Amino acid sequence: MTGPEAMSVTLDLDEVRALTIRCLEANGCDAANAAAVADVIHAAERDGAKSHGLFRLPGYVKSLRSRKVNGHAVPRVEDLAPGALRVVGDGGFAPLSQQLGLQPLIERTRAQGLAALAINDVYHFQALWYEVEPLAEAGLCAFAFTAAFPYVTAAGGRRPIYGTNPMAFGWPRPGKTPMVFDQASSALARGEIMIAARDGHDVPPGTGIDSEGRETTDPKAILDGGAQLPFGGYKGASIAMMVELLAGALIGDKFSFEALAADPGDGGPPGGGELILAIDPSRMGDAQGWAAHAELLFDQILSEEGVRLPAGRRHANRVKTATEGAAIPPALHDEILALCR
Amino acid sequence: MTGPEAMSVTLDLDEVRALTIRCLEANGCDAANAAAVADVIHAAERDGAKSHGLFRLPGYVKSLRSRKVNGHAVPRVEDLAPGALRVVGDGGFAPLSQQLGLQPLIERTRAQGLAALAINDVYHFQALWYEVEPLAEAGLCAFAFTAAFPYVTAAGGRRPIYGTNPMAFGWPRPGKTPMVFDQASSALARGEIMIAARDGHDVPPGTGIDSEGRETTDPKAILDGGAQLPFGGYKGASIAMMVELLAGALIGDKFSFEALAADPGDGGPPGGGELILAIDPSRMGDAQGWAAHAELLFDQILSEEGVRLPAGRRHANRVKTATEGAAIPPALHDEILALCR
Repeated sequence: MTGPEAMSVTLDLDEVRALTIRCLEANGCDAANAAAVADVIHAAERDGAKSHGLFRLPGYVKSLRSRKVNGHAVPRVEDLAPGALRVVGDGGFAPLSQQLGLQPLIERTRAQGLAALAINDVYHFQALWYEVEPLAEAGLCAFAFTAAFPYVTAAGGRRPIYGTNPMAFGWPRPGKTPMVFDQASSALARGEIMIAARDGHDVPPGTGIDSEGRETTDPKAILDGGAQLPFGGYKGASIAMMVELLAGALIGDKFSFEALAADPGDGGPPGGGELILAIDPSRMGDAQGWAAHAELLFDQILSEEGVRLPAGRRHANRVKTATEGAAIPPALHDEILALCR
Repeated sequence: MTGPEAMSVTLDLDEVRALTIRCLEANGCDAANAAAVADVIHAAERDGAKSHGLFRLPGYVKSLRSRKVNGHAVPRVEDLAPGALRVVGDGGFAPLSQQLGLQPLIERTRAQGLAALAINDVYHFQALWYEVEPLAEAGLCAFAFTAAFPYVTAAGGRRPIYGTNPMAFGWPRPGKTPMVFDQASSALARGEIMIAARDGHDVPPGTGIDSEGRETTDPKAILDGGAQLPFGGYKGASIAMMVELLAGALIGDKFSFEALAADPGDGGPPGGGELILAIDPSRMGDAQGWAAHAELLFDQILSEEGVRLPAGRRHANRVKTATEGAAIPPALHDEILALCR
């Protein structure tokens, strides 16, 4: 449905899902892989997380058309240790592997107290909160880590080595939506720098450096031979390095610089792995009290005017899009329709 | 031994240990508890980490003299789940509990692939790298988290809620000293703000706010009714909140604000808990390759001039203090000697 001034196209959330599936299937995805990616895009549009919604669909398609990504991937779960599982992703998009590993990880975590899920050989193009939120909804505390392409400098360095390397964390709040954060190790999301370059705006100081290693607020200079800076100086760089080690060497998968070296440059997602850790709070020493205890902290935080928990906006958007649907730029909608042919 | 101009007193590392033990035993610590704290202070002086070395000893003594801390604590190890252990600290200083839990955690991690150690009811006054470094030296990847007293604001808040909440991470490098980082969730360490206040220096912008919630570079205004700011804005605040949840509600121990409420204000360490997670890289899918693979990343990082790995300076200091000993301010040395009487 096109709005009165055609400023946006509004799709209800079922249409978001159906359009995604149609587009992916038209480009070489089988039904299972398409449905899993559609779940991710549906969740992003549902939560108003536009940068990981339909906006990403052309990138998914590019990586199918280049044959980098296996649209018929058949991931399988393997046992690594009593506390560790992995899903071998068969070169597909990450969502099907994640969905396959979710229930085994939940069961293993409840049995062991904590457990790890390594996901290997996938292409990851989504927000990480999607991975930890269902674990938190199942009553588990969860972490997720994944690398990307090299965009971010080491502490004191000038060369891009680390990915924007997000880390996500989820905390269960029985009876409420969980507390979830999902944050890049870079000072600014790469997408925001690209949008600033497109629109001719400066980016904030501290975002990046140019090809000579000088700090700049010119987004084009950062994207064109420069590098992004980590958030919070050397501390953010440490987090970025940790994410490389956890999603790379620890699980036998690619560092960001290895993902770039292996990539055909199709504009789609990087190849690599992902580590998810889950802990069962009911097995950690305060089985009866942990949930109410955590609420005392949240009460302290929320007692200040203007302070919100991470994910608060996303969970509020969810209520809105359920009735109002998701607004999509007409150009993006047209592009996706063209990709369906 | 006093230096020529009495600018410092130099102690060899055995003297550091012996002086610490003598001082703690003179103030109500039994031999086991005193020796464990002495190991921590010895390691800090060995590594040139002065802010956690003998500098802390008067604070340890204050908390013994106030009878807040149990100098005769008898910690015990308990089983929580196949992948989780805890040490009940009996109200003592953290080091004895950590030492008691270390070997069981290593064994459990090797058996399970990963494991958690909760440490409860201890008083923590040291650097967190001390906890993860021996795990990394044992070939394990490790995290540690602990809360403190409330000094740091929530994202967008003005009231101190979170501790300076360090998070440490260690990565094993067989044949080399491990990669270890240990970083506070605050923009600046509290000790540095206190030193700036003492010496009449400003602190960098972004360090904290005054009692009216205005950003300030005056360290006294931050300490006197103001609050510290998290590193890296809302992202550092997320890390601080995560640390509260992991070292507090998850393991049934105190949040930073609860530690303050329970404290007699003796100037010693906060009471609370600690969470340590360890993962065995040889059980995570790349048993043969993980160590060499990680070195490829470190090679990339270190190939840039002027870029070092975290802990590099500490490990270099270690070589130096082995022969040169540790230099202590004469006033601190005198204070400690007076506390031994």
